[in-house]
Amino acid sequence: MESYCYLDNSAVTRLDERVLEAMKPIFLEQYAVATSQFGYSMGIDSREILDEARASLAAHLKAEPEEIIFTSGSTESSNIALRGTVKASRKNHKHIIVSGIEDFPVLHTARDLERDGIGVTYLEVDEYGRVNPDRLREAIGDETVLVSIQHANQEIGTLQDIRAIGEICRGRGVLFHTDATHSFMRVPIDVKDINADLITFSAHTIHGPRGIGGLFVKKGTVLSKIYGGGFQEFDLRPGIENIPGAVGFARAASLVTIEENEKLMVLRNRLIELVEEKVPEVTLNGHRTLRLPQNANITFHRVEGESITLHMDMRGFAVSTGSACFSRSLEASHVIMAIGGDHERAHGSIRFSLSRFNDESQIVRAAEEISHVVEQLRVISPLGHPRDG
Amino acid sequence: MESYCYLDNSAVTRLDERVLEAMKPIFLEQYAVATSQFGYSMGIDSREILDEARASLAAHLKAEPEEIIFTSGSTESSNIALRGTVKASRKNHKHIIVSGIEDFPVLHTARDLERDGIGVTYLEVDEYGRVNPDRLREAIGDETVLVSIQHANQEIGTLQDIRAIGEICRGRGVLFHTDATHSFMRVPIDVKDINADLITFSAHTIHGPRGIGGLFVKKGTVLSKIYGGGFQEFDLRPGIENIPGAVGFARAASLVTIEENEKLMVLRNRLIELVEEKVPEVTLNGHRTLRLPQNANITFHRVEGESITLHMDMRGFAVSTGSACFSRSLEASHVIMAIGGDHERAHGSIRFSLSRFNDESQIVRAAEEISHVVEQLRVISPLGHPRDG
Repeated sequence: MESYCYLDNSAVTRLDERVLEAMKPIFLEQYAVATSQFGYSMGIDSREILDEARASLAAHLKAEPEEIIFTSGSTESSNIALRGTVKASRKNHKHIIVSGIEDFPVLHTARDLERDGIGVTYLEVDEYGRVNPDRLREAIGDETVLVSIQHANQEIGTLQDIRAIGEICRGRGVLFHTDATHSFMRVPIDVKDINADLITFSAHTIHGPRGIGGLFVKKGTVLSKIYGGGFQEFDLRPGIENIPGAVGFARAASLVTIEENEKLMVLRNRLIELVEEKVPEVTLNGHRTLRLPQNANITFHRVEGESITLHMDMRGFAVSTGSACFSRSLEASHVIMAIGGDHERAHGSIRFSLSRFNDESQIVRAAEEISHVVEQLRVISPLGHPRDG
Repeated sequence: MESYCYLDNSAVTRLDERVLEAMKPIFLEQYAVATSQFGYSMGIDSREILDEARASLAAHLKAEPEEIIFTSGSTESSNIALRGTVKASRKNHKHIIVSGIEDFPVLHTARDLERDGIGVTYLEVDEYGRVNPDRLREAIGDETVLVSIQHANQEIGTLQDIRAIGEICRGRGVLFHTDATHSFMRVPIDVKDINADLITFSAHTIHGPRGIGGLFVKKGTVLSKIYGGGFQEFDLRPGIENIPGAVGFARAASLVTIEENEKLMVLRNRLIELVEEKVPEVTLNGHRTLRLPQNANITFHRVEGESITLHMDMRGFAVSTGSACFSRSLEASHVIMAIGGDHERAHGSIRFSLSRFNDESQIVRAAEEISHVVEQLRVISPLGHPRDG
């Protein structure tokens, strides 16, 4: 299907050809394993290539090169942040705070830690998915070691006020981790400005390679590694360095521009506008402006998200739903539920994620198609009659 | 340096161009995230591509497709094997057995577990690096949950009798894990024949991509995941699937042939023969025949390994040494020490790893060069006079 169009997560896993070009010489020519300064020249060159990629990524976050470690992806990064700080913390420092709408790497790790006897506070969010900084302030206690609140939500795109959150954490001497998997390079992040100690970010959301992620670790942050092996990545993440991945990651980040992010926001706004114009009974999930430029999430009431996904697929569009079967979770989207939605709203929610490779004609066509799909599905819907109002 | 020749680990991290060709369409065309059967068609296709790679790798081990999980590499695989079984084991099942010459992922994980209160027995090896199955039998107690003994050693290439080891483990109802990072595809492995419950293997040792590994998990093996996130890989390893990596991994494995392994063994034997002929005072480390076809490890007495590495590098050859600074470990090679070597023997040890891209002329040239290098270094050596005998 040559005109098949991705308007979901898969849109960004398309590798940019320029990233592949950057990785090629590392795959085929400069492929030596990174050695110490006592190694052979080609291994020392490889270490320099790795460290250049590190420095390049650090610069995007206004961090120092040695504050970036490479991991296998954002899941591992967030696990190192949470497990690593809790493991390294003093005995009476056994409480963490997360938002209730974190993505699985943070949320499920928090649940694991809870089972191991760590206290966990899950902060509620408002109707837009925003954490109230006052609630955070109240939740921090003497035992609190870490606050982990995402920068942008994985489903509804809501941005948190991580500057305010970071300030509160610093004021109370508590570590602050933010999962920036979906916001990295799409929304500016300055580690000093937001007072972050740990930031999760990844290549797979910016047309970079899969299988590589990053973790910002502020100088002086006490962290244990979460599994054992060699001494790589400042002795924080073992395993032979994925240098082609690191180089591709850095290249992918360098390809994102302010203009591109502005274009994505224009396209995203157009999509929301068209859908709200063409389709009755829809709810925009998340905040209208405080959201990722590339994200829209809309509930189509009285329709099953899986049915929309299926019918849009037949019309050549990939979209995602927060419905249970689709997401391989056993529950309906915990995010939609947390912002006050019910099962019906969660099941009818569709997430659109736009990418470098989308254009306006696709957006116009997608809005057109989804209005037809929803109209047809509502005719045969078992989910009751039009809502009042 | 166009004729630069790798005779160490870096030799195998050169990606085979055919692997890159296999990954390209996944990078650029069939790049959808794998979805469940309730997802869109392109995501279902991606899942099929992933599962084909899984099945292809499984076949090489005579395993079932669903017995293979993808990880970020052999370090993570071994950690899942050790930590995952201990975590899932019954309360009174808190003892593991490893060999003393395991690579860092197993060795350091064993040490971590020991600090957490798990009993660990480190089995001694003989002068060739072989575990005595009788010693293993004696070491297994009622509390033993897992035996982890490598298939082939990372430095000296010695192969263990994993069939005998697996039989003992099965007889005692103890899980058996083997780290086959360096032997996968180079020495045949049949999971049923060796009674393995868990096998670590990786793509980075067979001209495949870095950042992806595999873990064989025999059906019915009770295992906990070691970190939290999504439900991928049969809920054993979270994180967005690295499908290009998996496809490249499978392709890399399929490119290894019996003929190639025979060729490597011939080259390796030729190298040992030439070095023993040209250079006095050398010791072959490991077993003369029960070793990886691609591995040779030779101690050049009265010379520092780092000096050999440096001088061979200037002559266009990459070789590795088990010396401390080179390996970024703080100690001299624990493997050479364990087979009865002293610091002098460890410091003068050079590991040669041959690959698909080496040929006989390189071997002849390398032997020639190393004989000159060693001769020169010995003239200026501070390490004493020629040995008696």
